[in-house]
Amino acid sequence: MPVARSARGPYAKTAKLRARAIDAGIELFGTTGYYGATLTDVADRLGMSLTGLQHHFPDKGSLLVAVLEERDRRAAAAVPGGSQVDAVESLLGMLRESQKNPGLMELQCVLSAEATSVEHPAHDYFRHRYAVLRSQGAAAFRQLADRGELAVPIEPESLTSMLIALVDGLQLQWLLDHDSVDIEAEVRTFLRTFIPTLH
Amino acid sequence: MPVARSARGPYAKTAKLRARAIDAGIELFGTTGYYGATLTDVADRLGMSLTGLQHHFPDKGSLLVAVLEERDRRAAAAVPGGSQVDAVESLLGMLRESQKNPGLMELQCVLSAEATSVEHPAHDYFRHRYAVLRSQGAAAFRQLADRGELAVPIEPESLTSMLIALVDGLQLQWLLDHDSVDIEAEVRTFLRTFIPTLH
Repeated sequence: MPVARSARGPYAKTAKLRARAIDAGIELFGTTGYYGATLTDVADRLGMSLTGLQHHFPDKGSLLVAVLEERDRRAAAAVPGGSQVDAVESLLGMLRESQKNPGLMELQCVLSAEATSVEHPAHDYFRHRYAVLRSQGAAAFRQLADRGELAVPIEPESLTSMLIALVDGLQLQWLLDHDSVDIEAEVRTFLRTFIPTLH
Repeated sequence: MPVARSARGPYAKTAKLRARAIDAGIELFGTTGYYGATLTDVADRLGMSLTGLQHHFPDKGSLLVAVLEERDRRAAAAVPGGSQVDAVESLLGMLRESQKNPGLMELQCVLSAEATSVEHPAHDYFRHRYAVLRSQGAAAFRQLADRGELAVPIEPESLTSMLIALVDGLQLQWLLDHDSVDIEAEVRTFLRTFIPTLH
């Protein structure tokens, strides 16, 4: 939890409760989806009254916003840096890490699927998130293409959409059955096919 | 609707109502998920009372079973036949067709994500479905491998998991934003990379 141990008083108490509610939101939205979960479920899980929870999160939408912000914060903390090949190793490392604590993976899987409906409160969030991912990935692959390091003539945009799709789809298969696929090995095989300079 | 026009009487009426309820279930489960939808929502959509609907589907679980059976029926009706290359063309044709009527694509996307939780009533259904898909795909790719038609040394099981993941992930991106990806083109690019004999 991002709450300093030395913090005291009402502020620390509020921050701690918000953090616990967000954790419960990650778990519930990742299990039954945004539509399937209620604020009462979250309050029950925290052992507090709905009215007490609504003091911090007046409705389910405000908890969803906080959950997505926390998701972004944790994802940003694990962002890869360095050269393109390092970026690939960092991506593989992130995939490995996410399997140790699949809560965020479930959240991503369930909420992004639900959010395909235009009425979903996180629809614009996920549309934007995927547009940014595609743009960042395409820039990285374009650098490799310009250096002649792509084995197959392929548009960087196309390769990026395929990589993002592959990761999402493999995570779905793994969440359904942990023994069914080796996410990291498959992503490495895919990338090696297109980038032979990869170890 | 699979109801013969000449059918009359109470049986025909029941079959027609069941078919309408299943269509409503496909749409609702595909939008708000199984957890987010209620039998009352389905009854409202059909303009009938909850009690009336419960005469045909006593609970949400029984409607889910009927929805998944209908999903399988429609998927089986579009199953590819013929040689491996024909099978690839048939897969691409199916992907093209499913974009014209994305209801079943949304259902697959939302329910499979929700069903990653072991408590979900369709968890075993989706685990089994993916195991069968992987096994059928691997058998087809193994034939190509035995004939030396795979460009890259890759396990047929691995290639199958990747192809299934790619299709699921591209459909998610397309459902979020129809202009973002060309599902058929990306899948064709992926397959051509591994099977150079493909046109």
